[in-house]
Amino acid sequence: MDSKENALSNLEELRLRLDSGEMRSARSLIADLRPAELARLLESLPLQERAVVWEMVDPELGGDVLVEVGEEVRDGLIEGMEIAELIAAIDGMELDDLADLVADLPETLTQEVLRSMDQQDRDRLHHVLAYDEDSAGGLMNIDVVTVRADVTLEVVIRYLHARGEIPDGTDSIFVVNRENEYQGVLLLTRLVTQDPNLSVAEVMSTDVDSIPANTPSENVVWEFENRDLLSAAVTDKDNHVVGRITVDDVLDVVRDEAEHSLMGAAGLDEEDDMFAPAAKSALRRSLWLGINLATAFLAASVVDIFQATLDKIVLLAVLMPVVPSMGGVAGTQSLTIMTRAIALGQIDKTNTRGIFRKEILVGIWNGLLWAFVVATFTYLWFGDYRIGAVIAGAMAINLVAAAGAGFAIPLMLKKMDIDPALAGGVVLTTVTDVVGYMSFLGLGALFLL
Amino acid sequence: MDSKENALSNLEELRLRLDSGEMRSARSLIADLRPAELARLLESLPLQERAVVWEMVDPELGGDVLVEVGEEVRDGLIEGMEIAELIAAIDGMELDDLADLVADLPETLTQEVLRSMDQQDRDRLHHVLAYDEDSAGGLMNIDVVTVRADVTLEVVIRYLHARGEIPDGTDSIFVVNRENEYQGVLLLTRLVTQDPNLSVAEVMSTDVDSIPANTPSENVVWEFENRDLLSAAVTDKDNHVVGRITVDDVLDVVRDEAEHSLMGAAGLDEEDDMFAPAAKSALRRSLWLGINLATAFLAASVVDIFQATLDKIVLLAVLMPVVPSMGGVAGTQSLTIMTRAIALGQIDKTNTRGIFRKEILVGIWNGLLWAFVVATFTYLWFGDYRIGAVIAGAMAINLVAAAGAGFAIPLMLKKMDIDPALAGGVVLTTVTDVVGYMSFLGLGALFLL
Repeated sequence: MDSKENALSNLEELRLRLDSGEMRSARSLIADLRPAELARLLESLPLQERAVVWEMVDPELGGDVLVEVGEEVRDGLIEGMEIAELIAAIDGMELDDLADLVADLPETLTQEVLRSMDQQDRDRLHHVLAYDEDSAGGLMNIDVVTVRADVTLEVVIRYLHARGEIPDGTDSIFVVNRENEYQGVLLLTRLVTQDPNLSVAEVMSTDVDSIPANTPSENVVWEFENRDLLSAAVTDKDNHVVGRITVDDVLDVVRDEAEHSLMGAAGLDEEDDMFAPAAKSALRRSLWLGINLATAFLAASVVDIFQATLDKIVLLAVLMPVVPSMGGVAGTQSLTIMTRAIALGQIDKTNTRGIFRKEILVGIWNGLLWAFVVATFTYLWFGDYRIGAVIAGAMAINLVAAAGAGFAIPLMLKKMDIDPALAGGVVLTTVTDVVGYMSFLGLGALFLL
Repeated sequence: MDSKENALSNLEELRLRLDSGEMRSARSLIADLRPAELARLLESLPLQERAVVWEMVDPELGGDVLVEVGEEVRDGLIEGMEIAELIAAIDGMELDDLADLVADLPETLTQEVLRSMDQQDRDRLHHVLAYDEDSAGGLMNIDVVTVRADVTLEVVIRYLHARGEIPDGTDSIFVVNRENEYQGVLLLTRLVTQDPNLSVAEVMSTDVDSIPANTPSENVVWEFENRDLLSAAVTDKDNHVVGRITVDDVLDVVRDEAEHSLMGAAGLDEEDDMFAPAAKSALRRSLWLGINLATAFLAASVVDIFQATLDKIVLLAVLMPVVPSMGGVAGTQSLTIMTRAIALGQIDKTNTRGIFRKEILVGIWNGLLWAFVVATFTYLWFGDYRIGAVIAGAMAINLVAAAGAGFAIPLMLKKMDIDPALAGGVVLTTVTDVVGYMSFLGLGALFLL
């Protein structure tokens, strides 16, 4: 049950068996894994071994594995498949997963896949594909069970027995009127505990709203978290029930958002293959390096202004890294707090002033504290109180500027529709570098020459 | 339904009403919010307004709101409450939430709260408190419904009707034997669709394992994600069912983990109050600044070695920021990829070599690419091909070193039981700064003097 350690030992164990040619026992190990586990395993294998293991995966699980792996790994796996294999793999997939997969296929493959489906499935798929992938419509399944409010629970039970099965993860049945308009939900927990002679109307919950199909994914997450929902009805603009979202899909969105922020902040894409060819990865990562080079040369051009000063006082060059570096750290702290608060919807014009004042005050406090520390340290090192005073002044200036930048940059980026979690760090360190070099070398030029 | 925008307009709207003294209408707005929404609202209010709004919150929701807010905000809210108010607020809370709350209370308050409970509730609470907060036992609720395998579904239904209600979010009933040992789960979806004359044994699922109570939270998350569970039984070491975990608690863990990584990487604590007094926040944030100051002075001491060189060639001082900065970005990319793969359990000794080779190759590629670019640019700027050659050489060295450091640091930290997501960045930039200054100024000293 300690499944993370299991995944690790699975990986090691599998590699050992592959290495020693024990294909049969490798195969039996693979047969025990679930799609999500298989996906993580495949992602962690170099290309050749990945191809071998992929061959061993139960074709029926193929589609679910393809949905779970990152885009680039998926493309690689699909490339090696016959069209017939692909069609077999996607057979029996849940519609929302299938839609995600089909949306990422090359056009020619999409056509083949659609041709392989019967008319009804094709219509259903088109229905989901019509919505943005990152909206409630893109997240939903259309396998909903609905009942009318005016029947008794006994009738509902009889209807369910006649159906014989309802989709996995169903915790509630949606209540609709004659026009298929959403009325509320009948929780299974109520259905199995209440008097069968009661009507659905008497037992249903009407305080859970449905989610409009065009609601962005992040707001769907918000809704599920705020209300501890297990599932929710999705409705079109006329309040007709068109599908349902289950909490496992919401969990995936939360996970994906977190990964996207984490990887994006380093200029990476969470969909990339860890084992992509080095030249390809290098090229992809170089955009971020190119942007950084521009900002580094901007910093160098600031230093360049003070060539004459540096030429006379070489100690300034020695201590030059300290002030920008501290500004970067302090600014990142303010930036992180703001970025998170914006993501949680906690910032608006009514409280920005209070936060601004707070951050600037923190900048002043830490500016003074570290000005004192760094001045003392510099004096002890070089025995020159004047250079200590210069670095102290620059430190105070840069930490206050850093607090201001950390506060303002996320708000500005947000206004420009750029995700602060992705671009905030680069913009911030550009500011703290420029202000850091400028203040330190500028004060040096003013007072030491 | 666009709830994030709603939260924002709630905040603005509320502030407007408070400002204009419309207390009654502010109160009615607050009455419409759920605990999670109230929590985010309270967190986003400065202290004075927060106290006013907290007074307006329905006392029955108090406990649920207290669990949702960050620790520091919670402490502030509790400080202003009478003990009787606190006891009223926690009445009716779910046991896992109550345990989280009680675990964070000051000792004297804990005693008061425990005294206010009846013997049975106290015993139940002690039961949950006995487990680590970050384990399956700490996440679980103990309100489980169990049945025996040898009864028919009809008997189960009669039993449930007699109970009259089962806990919210129940999607399955646990099947146990006479000794209360876990046997499997009876899904409600099966209960309502299958022939009532069938026995539980014929309808139950036996392929879902229970989760041992001492399983760490992150492995619980793994289990829920891999198996798309809505709930799972928690068992003690003798396989007795002691509780159940529901997916909404798992969602909270995923959210908390993501926030912890994000905030921790900047040396921040996600439990801190955005509106804590500036002096307090400054002091808390200064640990990270202190560590950074030490690394900045380490970098300065490297530069110090080359005082004589800098004294002769001031251009080296001007271009000094470029190489360390690029190394920091490239290294962070390798670091982020490794840290994520470790967190996903995708790294072990069978595939580290392949990843190492890949990362070093990427370092070489990007090292050569940016060496060329920066040499060209430097030549164009200063018209000196020799300094262009020096910066190119340093760039190539530092980007390869950065790739190696980004690969190795997370593995080393992991081995030392330090979370790479928190400490990795600081250690990495120390390496890339030192190597960056050393290689650039060192090559300069070697070839330009």
